[in-house]
Amino acid sequence: MTNINKISVFAPATVSNLNCGFDVLGFALDAPGDTVDIELTNSGRLELVAITGDGGLLPVEPERNTATAVVRMFFDRLGTHHGARVWLHKGMPLNSGLGSSAASAVAALVAVNNLTGHPMRKEELLLLAMEGERLACGSAHADNVAPCLYGGLVLIRSYDPLEVIQLPVPEPLYSMVVHPHVHIPTREARAALPAEIPLKTAISQWANLAGFVSACYTNDKALLGRSMTDLVAEPVRSPRIPFFDAMKAEALNKDALAFGISGSGPTVFALFENKPQAEQCAMAINKFLLKNNLNNEYYISRVNEQGPKILNQ
Amino acid sequence: MTNINKISVFAPATVSNLNCGFDVLGFALDAPGDTVDIELTNSGRLELVAITGDGGLLPVEPERNTATAVVRMFFDRLGTHHGARVWLHKGMPLNSGLGSSAASAVAALVAVNNLTGHPMRKEELLLLAMEGERLACGSAHADNVAPCLYGGLVLIRSYDPLEVIQLPVPEPLYSMVVHPHVHIPTREARAALPAEIPLKTAISQWANLAGFVSACYTNDKALLGRSMTDLVAEPVRSPRIPFFDAMKAEALNKDALAFGISGSGPTVFALFENKPQAEQCAMAINKFLLKNNLNNEYYISRVNEQGPKILNQ
Repeated sequence: MTNINKISVFAPATVSNLNCGFDVLGFALDAPGDTVDIELTNSGRLELVAITGDGGLLPVEPERNTATAVVRMFFDRLGTHHGARVWLHKGMPLNSGLGSSAASAVAALVAVNNLTGHPMRKEELLLLAMEGERLACGSAHADNVAPCLYGGLVLIRSYDPLEVIQLPVPEPLYSMVVHPHVHIPTREARAALPAEIPLKTAISQWANLAGFVSACYTNDKALLGRSMTDLVAEPVRSPRIPFFDAMKAEALNKDALAFGISGSGPTVFALFENKPQAEQCAMAINKFLLKNNLNNEYYISRVNEQGPKILNQ
Repeated sequence: MTNINKISVFAPATVSNLNCGFDVLGFALDAPGDTVDIELTNSGRLELVAITGDGGLLPVEPERNTATAVVRMFFDRLGTHHGARVWLHKGMPLNSGLGSSAASAVAALVAVNNLTGHPMRKEELLLLAMEGERLACGSAHADNVAPCLYGGLVLIRSYDPLEVIQLPVPEPLYSMVVHPHVHIPTREARAALPAEIPLKTAISQWANLAGFVSACYTNDKALLGRSMTDLVAEPVRSPRIPFFDAMKAEALNKDALAFGISGSGPTVFALFENKPQAEQCAMAINKFLLKNNLNNEYYISRVNEQGPKILNQ
């Protein structure tokens, strides 16, 4: 493409929650992810030209689709009269717990910020991407958009004011994610959570999260694994994920450091110290689910420290 | 003393909980602390020769006093027929929230372990000191005994199995503790805690604790301060501490990084980046309390990275 008014940006899938880090941790994957092409125009109009890869499930109205809605917010915030033509290429399953709406929003925002000469800092883009999350799933959470936009392993320390901390990524670390083809809407998964939890449970959970953060700084992968226990979401969410216990047993049997639910599921993830282990585990779970008539796909990835990628401009 | 069967050990006061680290964090002070003298005998008997500095409040029966009770456990665990004569010198207020029982137990255990040729590792001494805590206050918590025994800033990652992590101490860091002379039994302070807390509150608390741990590794004292918020214990415990809000306001006004309840109170603590600030704050609070007819004493200390100290042998 030689047209400098057009750009194509890839933004990655993200795994959030990470067991002990419920609602506050997330990391970015190399793949899968979404790609958004944007062409800047002077029309003042926002046009969602095409969506591919969504099986016709995403809203086509620009104000209801996350990718275009955040571009509208971006223009409004700048007070410009720009218009844009937007193409959204979904490269990952919807409602899977892999931060699909986050990837669309981040790709679109990074694209439009590039095309307009970088008027916004990352922190500002993050706030807009969070508004995209509010549109997509009812709450402006940051645990997918922040790792998607910043790359790496991210802690949301505070929402008011918003504070995002990039944690050092233990090396080597390989993640396996498996997406079984069942539908659990994020709203429903959130509704399954209790409004209150026992103080004792909360203490164990925060002790584990503290251990996790320590493990990141000291590259202590055994501690990382021991700390990645989920006493809060897994007990109530895992029963909705078919074969959760069997998949977990398989992963731990294959020396996974940790296994858990990605986001609000149904995707599950596991972390390994080497790639062959991650691949073997993913293939074993894939086979096992297929044998049980459950379609699924899997991805192997390091933690993606780069975040969004400009494909061409 | 030339008698190699006698030793004198000092063990420090400790500040536990640390706001966002309720039940899982603690650090050791340089002063105050307890000193225990132990003379090993062949009598098979355990004798509590004298207690000083307790105002006659501590139990004098060897099996009920923490310092001697842990020595008995130590001997029983080893299966020896040793006896001991024990002198306990309380150098700090009882029931103050400064880990008084922890200091007595740790000093006694380090002393008797030294006298018997170090048959136990620190981890084993810690378990016995925790049993001392169970005797003293009804629960075998580790957030005072662990920093007292290990020194420094300590995270209790897990109780089952017990796992203690020493966090890097941000530098420079000065603590001020003020002990107002009011009595709040630990059991009563624990009873004030709710059995359940809102999930939202728990998430904020663990996000802050994660921020705190990150701040320790990156020596980011501003982040340390922002993270040290207590959404769990402070709201229910602070009303029992006279002038809590006024002391907090004074500390924050004197540029404290953080202010909170030490242990279960009534002692309060604050952290500063330099010593004069810590001193000025302590003196101002001391004066203010005296003007309001509330006796108190205060201590200024760095985080004590050494832990127990052998005074002579």
